[in-house]
Amino acid sequence: MNAEIITIGDELVTGFRVDTNCAFICRQLTSAGYIINFTTSVGDSIESMEEAFRLAMRRASLVVTTGGLGPTDDDITKKAIVKTFKRNLIFHEDILSEIKERYARRGIEMPAINQNQALLPQGARFFPNKTGSAVGICIAEQGKIFVALPGVPREMEQIVQDELIPYLLSLKTTQNISSTTLKTTGIVESRLAELIAPGLKLEQGVKLAYLPGYSGVNLRIIARADTPEEAQAKCNALATEIAKKCDKYIFGRDDDTLEGIVGQLLLDNDKTLSVAESCTAGQLGMTITSVSGASRYFVGGGIVYANEAKIERLGVDPEIIEKDGAVSEECALAMAEGARQAYGSSYALSVTGIAGPDGGTEDKPVGTTWIGLASAHSSIAKKYNFGTERNSNRIRASYAALELLRREILDIK
Amino acid sequence: MNAEIITIGDELVTGFRVDTNCAFICRQLTSAGYIINFTTSVGDSIESMEEAFRLAMRRASLVVTTGGLGPTDDDITKKAIVKTFKRNLIFHEDILSEIKERYARRGIEMPAINQNQALLPQGARFFPNKTGSAVGICIAEQGKIFVALPGVPREMEQIVQDELIPYLLSLKTTQNISSTTLKTTGIVESRLAELIAPGLKLEQGVKLAYLPGYSGVNLRIIARADTPEEAQAKCNALATEIAKKCDKYIFGRDDDTLEGIVGQLLLDNDKTLSVAESCTAGQLGMTITSVSGASRYFVGGGIVYANEAKIERLGVDPEIIEKDGAVSEECALAMAEGARQAYGSSYALSVTGIAGPDGGTEDKPVGTTWIGLASAHSSIAKKYNFGTERNSNRIRASYAALELLRREILDIK
Repeated sequence: MNAEIITIGDELVTGFRVDTNCAFICRQLTSAGYIINFTTSVGDSIESMEEAFRLAMRRASLVVTTGGLGPTDDDITKKAIVKTFKRNLIFHEDILSEIKERYARRGIEMPAINQNQALLPQGARFFPNKTGSAVGICIAEQGKIFVALPGVPREMEQIVQDELIPYLLSLKTTQNISSTTLKTTGIVESRLAELIAPGLKLEQGVKLAYLPGYSGVNLRIIARADTPEEAQAKCNALATEIAKKCDKYIFGRDDDTLEGIVGQLLLDNDKTLSVAESCTAGQLGMTITSVSGASRYFVGGGIVYANEAKIERLGVDPEIIEKDGAVSEECALAMAEGARQAYGSSYALSVTGIAGPDGGTEDKPVGTTWIGLASAHSSIAKKYNFGTERNSNRIRASYAALELLRREILDIK
Repeated sequence: MNAEIITIGDELVTGFRVDTNCAFICRQLTSAGYIINFTTSVGDSIESMEEAFRLAMRRASLVVTTGGLGPTDDDITKKAIVKTFKRNLIFHEDILSEIKERYARRGIEMPAINQNQALLPQGARFFPNKTGSAVGICIAEQGKIFVALPGVPREMEQIVQDELIPYLLSLKTTQNISSTTLKTTGIVESRLAELIAPGLKLEQGVKLAYLPGYSGVNLRIIARADTPEEAQAKCNALATEIAKKCDKYIFGRDDDTLEGIVGQLLLDNDKTLSVAESCTAGQLGMTITSVSGASRYFVGGGIVYANEAKIERLGVDPEIIEKDGAVSEECALAMAEGARQAYGSSYALSVTGIAGPDGGTEDKPVGTTWIGLASAHSSIAKKYNFGTERNSNRIRASYAALELLRREILDIK
């Protein structure tokens, strides 16, 4: 069963607001077994809306719209529905009393303008709105379903979960979907594909997507089948097959983050962490503490941007900076060891590099970064070459540092 | 001139990813004078893509797509372009050497799979990608323009800003557009509107938009007129009128950033800066050093997440923490003074707060934040109440700290 989503509003097509409603409805409908090929955003124009409604109703068996159901003049979705489906608006006394009651509970008299909201296209059913005055509208026509929902996210979400999805499930649908995401780090997309692709055959109804981001490449698997169990089994089979091919690069699944996984490893092993940051200048600390509860294992650290700060705050030997430079194995090791001592933590991570855009040399081009890791028994440092873009270098360096620690704790070579 | 955006990827139509690319491009094209009636997201299917491309090319004079240009098998946008425009793919040696060089700089051999990325539809121009291997593709046909960009946000954004917009502006459009953005901080949107709106009359063809973000509210002025000079004059007139009404909140214009402005003020006054971060845990240092050349005024700082770190690394009196708590005026002052001394800087900024989601009390709810500023002659601390969302609290706190320093240097009350 195909579905389409249409989100309505000038604020969307001018880019003033990022559309989060669309993704919410897509997730809900996908889980309910619908396949979505297209979603559309359309501005506040009756003609454009009518065009979008007609096209979607031609292509899909379910169309869900959000937005434009409020009481004010710029809320014109109902007018576009009336034109598209050629139906009159009918007054619903029960809807009006419900709205009046809602206002009464807040001690406010209902503004007259809200009377509009009790008008529904002839033959439509409505989905009650527990938190607002615009009800959801549902029209069934020639075996297809058209649903208009309010645009306020919490109202829309409540109606989808409490009304729309149960209604759709009460109708017969045909397919079930299961999905999972394997999260990798420390390997580029194309190299990962070289590990995974050879000999890989995707079963009917199974899709694999490579989604690169700063922390690494996510591998998303979606499987469709006739039963939920079958979809789940297909999904798991592919995840297992992929994991065999690139296990050491996979740090987690689904909602896992690298900083969350590393934090959990520290907690599980009763260890603490500090940092010594030069080029990242706080990025690493910020990433580690984006996990709520990070104070249970993160102590703090030094942002040692200037060489004097490295020397005076973390005890880096000035001769190292003189002889090897601040971007060197020796300096990364000294920074990590200095932070571990100063902050009294089990582990310390250090980052020193040339973030760019300036400061590169032939020997040490922009992107050259040394990451150090000090622990009770040893210290290591590893050299990385990131790109030329300052901010992405710093984010990549932070994740590379976390991955170095993950491998140390798990003893992955 | 009408434009349409098409964002591509199963992760969008299944709702696994919220589409932020679409809003970014909508904003950029709207600023460049385009009118957008429809945007579409489409799954990874050549047939669906072709259908979306054809429809958009029929309705609009500019179509911009994102996604599906990577080297792996699920990246099929180029195949859909070939089918839609009936053009062969041509190998571009210069693109391949650029990609090879990028890998070489990172000390990695280019995976063979990346050769695909040097293939472009016949007759297409390309937009270089400074941070990734997928170039932008631009096809001009029958007076219309089709552009395919990579889906990785930072790559897409760089190409749009550095390549696409200048290219579009170099073509003749029927109207001349001038725009400018006044950047404010330290005041909420509705309060700003109360200052600006009374007595303000917008001339014909002039639009003013309030764009709230983490660092403050941007005021975007767009003026359309028959000549560039007239558009520019209308734009300037409104900017001057607005500046009169809220001057002390305006820190810059257009590409100015608060961290850049503060950095320049430090340089101009021959001053240096250090930080002491508790809840922000590096966010402030990272923001300051996102400016290239920040090493000329930024020394470093302490991430003092644990109370022991505040005491031992910055000399905060344990009695302060015992008596007033770590989130207090006294602690913020002691942290700033401690950092200024430890790092030997002219100024030091400190941040200590309850980022959330846990840790709030009745007296100090989540979002309560103290920001301190130490300088040669005095120290001050100010209390803020941000929201309940951890990461946005930390970003807001960093900008509030920078604004405190800007006002100190400029002596704005």
